Amino acid sequence: MSQAAKTLDGWYCLHDFRTMDWTTWKMASSEERESAIQEFQGLVDKWNRTEKEEQGSHVIYSIVGQKADFMMMILRPTMEELNEIENEFNKTKLAEFTIPAHSYVSVVELSNYLSSDEDPYQNPQIRARLYPILPKSKYICFYPMDKRRQGNDNWYMLPMEERMNLMRSHGMIGRQYAGLVKQIITGSVGFDDYEWGVTLFSDDVLQFKKLVYEMRFDEVSARYGEFGSFFVGNHLADEKIQTFLHV
Amino acid sequence: MSQAAKTLDGWYCLHDFRTMDWTTWKMASSEERESAIQEFQGLVDKWNRTEKEEQGSHVIYSIVGQKADFMMMILRPTMEELNEIENEFNKTKLAEFTIPAHSYVSVVELSNYLSSDEDPYQNPQIRARLYPILPKSKYICFYPMDKRRQGNDNWYMLPMEERMNLMRSHGMIGRQYAGLVKQIITGSVGFDDYEWGVTLFSDDVLQFKKLVYEMRFDEVSARYGEFGSFFVGNHLADEKIQTFLHV
Amino acid sequence: MSQAAKTLDGWYCLHDFRTMDWTTWKMASSEERESAIQEFQGLVDKWNRTEKEEQGSHVIYSIVGQKADFMMMILRPTMEELNEIENEFNKTKLAEFTIPAHSYVSVVELSNYLSSDEDPYQNPQIRARLYPILPKSKYICFYPMDKRRQGNDNWYMLPMEERMNLMRSHGMIGRQYAGLVKQIITGSVGFDDYEWGVTLFSDDVLQFKKLVYEMRFDEVSARYGEFGSFFVGNHLADEKIQTFLHV
Amino acid sequence: MSQAAKTLDGWYCLHDFRTMDWTTWKMASSEERESAIQEFQGLVDKWNRTEKEEQGSHVIYSIVGQKADFMMMILRPTMEELNEIENEFNKTKLAEFTIPAHSYVSVVELSNYLSSDEDPYQNPQIRARLYPILPKSKYICFYPMDKRRQGNDNWYMLPMEERMNLMRSHGMIGRQYAGLVKQIITGSVGFDDYEWGVTLFSDDVLQFKKLVYEMRFDEVSARYGEFGSFFVGNHLADEKIQTFLHV
Amino acid sequence: MSQAAKTLDGWYCLHDFRTMDWTTWKMASSEERESAIQEFQGLVDKWNRTEKEEQGSHVIYSIVGQKADFMMMILRPTMEELNEIENEFNKTKLAEFTIPAHSYVSVVELSNYLSSDEDPYQNPQIRARLYPILPKSKYICFYPMDKRRQGNDNWYMLPMEERMNLMRSHGMIGRQYAGLVKQIITGSVGFDDYEWGVTLFSDDVLQFKKLVYEMRFDEVSARYGEFGSFFVGNHLADEKIQTFLHV
Repeated sequence: MSQAAKTLDGWYCLHDFRTMDWTTWKMASSEERESAIQEFQGLVDKWNRTEKEEQGSHVIYSIVGQKADFMMMILRPTMEELNEIENEFNKTKLAEFTIPAHSYVSVVELSNYLSSDEDPYQNPQIRARLYPILPKSKYICFYPMDKRRQGNDNWYMLPMEERMNLMRSHGMIGRQYAGLVKQIITGSVGFDDYEWGVTLFSDDVLQFKKLVYEMRFDEVSARYGEFGSFFVGNHLADEKIQTFLHV
Repeated sequence: MSQAAKTLDGWYCLHDFRTMDWTTWKMASSEERESAIQEFQGLVDKWNRTEKEEQGSHVIYSIVGQKADFMMMILRPTMEELNEIENEFNKTKLAEFTIPAHSYVSVVELSNYLSSDEDPYQNPQIRARLYPILPKSKYICFYPMDKRRQGNDNWYMLPMEERMNLMRSHGMIGRQYAGLVKQIITGSVGFDDYEWGVTLFSDDVLQFKKLVYEMRFDEVSARYGEFGSFFVGNHLADEKIQTFLHV
Repeated sequence: MSQAAKTLDGWYCLHDFRTMDWTTWKMASSEERESAIQEFQGLVDKWNRTEKEEQGSHVIYSIVGQKADFMMMILRPTMEELNEIENEFNKTKLAEFTIPAHSYVSVVELSNYLSSDEDPYQNPQIRARLYPILPKSKYICFYPMDKRRQGNDNWYMLPMEERMNLMRSHGMIGRQYAGLVKQIITGSVGFDDYEWGVTLFSDDVLQFKKLVYEMRFDEVSARYGEFGSFFVGNHLADEKIQTFLHV
Repeated sequence: MSQAAKTLDGWYCLHDFRTMDWTTWKMASSEERESAIQEFQGLVDKWNRTEKEEQGSHVIYSIVGQKADFMMMILRPTMEELNEIENEFNKTKLAEFTIPAHSYVSVVELSNYLSSDEDPYQNPQIRARLYPILPKSKYICFYPMDKRRQGNDNWYMLPMEERMNLMRSHGMIGRQYAGLVKQIITGSVGFDDYEWGVTLFSDDVLQFKKLVYEMRFDEVSARYGEFGSFFVGNHLADEKIQTFLHV
Repeated sequence: MSQAAKTLDGWYCLHDFRTMDWTTWKMASSEERESAIQEFQGLVDKWNRTEKEEQGSHVIYSIVGQKADFMMMILRPTMEELNEIENEFNKTKLAEFTIPAHSYVSVVELSNYLSSDEDPYQNPQIRARLYPILPKSKYICFYPMDKRRQGNDNWYMLPMEERMNLMRSHGMIGRQYAGLVKQIITGSVGFDDYEWGVTLFSDDVLQFKKLVYEMRFDEVSARYGEFGSFFVGNHLADEKIQTFLHV
């Protein structure tokens, strides 16, 4: 058996994609719509307070294309809190006008390269990455992925050392995009259908394409990457929600 | 032909995942909702009595993400009883507000390693595992799986001895999680689309990820495992059902 | 080109799986429901007469899990009759409360191992298998399957003799279940998406699992079998239909 | 690069499969239904005139099983005409009671084996096959297919000569069914998801199974064939439409 | 690691496919329909002005078969503009009568073969291809595609030089169709599920089939091409929209 990679795990994460039912939304009275928006903004205000207290984080983006109309990405210390937020949203007025489009359950994950003397969970730099305040960048990109286990291209049968070498050179590509793209890796083995979720943030949407494409030529992706659906979106800052929902 | 593995088979098992139609649920009058909840709790009470009499067992969990809102996992001595429970639930008031999201039909399964002199079905330890009272842990994880039959990675073409060796080392990983994760294996060959269902219980949700991920580096999973969808949830103890359904 | 297997073909077969829309069914008045049940039982009576006259056969089973609520398996001498029965059912009152869940179109098929002097269609034993009266066993199991054509595992590229040897040893497993499981093979090449439908009948549901699992270790299944969805159900004898539909 | 096969292309082809919404159809008044049938028969009359003038052809079949209730196969000289017919049908009263079930867009295709001196489009025998009046046989069978491009089984990497040899022996099987089965090949590269549609006509439905099964043992299908869904149906002659739609 | 291909990127692109709900469209009053058409034509007028100012481009086509009824392909300088146009359309009256059928998010992409001294974004010929005014040809063909990463057929593991040679010979085929077919390649790595979208325009619909089929015999497609769904359509010039929507 190959040696399993060790991980550090931080906040739990829910990516929640929704499609608006614009037809019924327009059929609602403007009072009903206004009150639905107020209720939703109340929820967002609560999430903002949680973020300010560093007890979690969240972002909201509108999604381009028919896969969804908007998405909420939410980080919390426990799986129960994610479930409560999901249920609380589902019980709102606004949710009556949305259709679930896709979701992803995972946990912020880091590879553990520190020496074993140190408790990584006490290291402030690592804590900042395990319990991150999500950037409010102009664009978001999300996709889930697996490491391939197929014939001669079986990641999980490689010796640990080879996997580490491959990941190191893979990481080098990512590092070239430092400052341009911020990447949050969340692990979902045992939680959802793929093994990882990748969430990218940038103020230049083209960098998503450049980064993912460049990586595709790297052996880790070329031979061992299996990718799910890609979602791309524009930031829905609090003040833009009203405009987005205006009909 | 490779020698087929022998199995011991216990209670039949239905995993029944449901999505709430929160919109119509909120449209119902509070009396209607209250009476639907009462009726459902009556059903759960009946299931509780069956469990007390050790004639079956069940658990209810809320599910994180859009795959479902809650799930019922039900064990019974016969396939007819599973079908009756399913139909009885389907005819309740509450069911009118749920949408079937996923289900799985299987039977509790153990590998038979006992000497042939003994009747394993009389062994009390084995009986306790074939007819288990399900733990009421904080978290549940469910996924179905197949053993791969693909090119050179064909589990069913391996000699019995090699399969036993592989499964033994695989089992060693599971044993490291003893006390942390309880695992129920149910067989579904001939009953549902995958060959097995795996249901994990834990009070620490992160252990699901650690266990499944560590196992993935073991040859049995790395070369021979094919996995279906993963579902993760939080325990819905009887007293929490009311809160879950409160709108 | 490999020599094609010769087949004998009997009655045409429709597997018709339906999901009940219990919510609208309960919304119907009890008179409406009663009249829908009467009408359906009238249809079943007609099918019973056809079966008595040995002009066809049928069975009805309730299905466990969410894939369907019940299924009708119908054998008739012509494709037109199947279509008429399907359309007649679709026009009933009961059908208004069902949702099509799955169907399969095929024809009872036997491999022809008789010497060429004899007309197998005149052999009474063969006739009994080509035009079978379906057993009213307690349980049914249905799944479609293909023979694999993939890389080195290509059934259709094997020489006839090798295929016959493989099928012979495969058949030996089936024979061990004689008296326990009755198997009806229906061919669907040119009629539906898989190449065969397998329908198993037994009074002990566990025998489905044992049979299918044991066969999976045989090279025919291990290397060459591709399986579709599995459905398992409990017999809905005429007198149980009323109970099944009672709300 | 392998040399591309040359094709001759005739009339454009739309296979349009529809499911009846019998529940709403029954809810319509008998006047409404009658008028919907009249309108549809008016459409069919127009198509009949087009066929008489040899400006196109069409057939209508009822489909066995839940994949669809009926299908219209329509040939026309231009893609615009297909689109107009589709839109015209969609705007009829009858269409309000149908649900699109499947469609396929293609063009009648022949391989060009004539010497290059001759213009095949002036050859009357070839014209009869490029612009065919569809047979009104008792049964229809439709399926789409691809030539495989997978590992060592890559049709498009074979030299032209090998492909021609393989196709020749493949064609020999088809020729044995001359008089029993009429086959129309339509090409759909660039038009729909598979590369070809195969439509078979026969007065003996079993011949579809025999033909497709026998061909599957031929290397062209065994190693290089990838098949989509199969549809089988009974002829709906003009005078049977009324009966089919009678409720 | 193989050297990644360099790309030039132009306008962002949304392919938006819609199905008409003809039943509810017919139920609307003719005033309501007329006003919905007016509103939509107002939108198109705005798009026309943007195109005249060379700040974007768009085309509208009706689609043959059930995959969709019409499609809008829209090019804009930013992802935000695409999202706004999508949301603006979704909030129109006409959108209430459409059902999202498929969409694709990408960006106009060129391979960069210029010497590094020159800024390709200043080259007028390249600018014309990065920011193209879409042709108003009679026919459109759209499909998404990936380069394969499978066993020995792994595009991304090939050395840059081999990829360039393969693409050069692939491009030769395309060039034979110059004047007959205009091709727009849009890259979607990081934006949507495939790596590229291919949009073809022609006044002779058969050229789509000829081009795509001929290319399939070229190694780039034969060994390395993975194709998604194909859509084919007829131009809906502004003056034809009224006819298309007339009921």
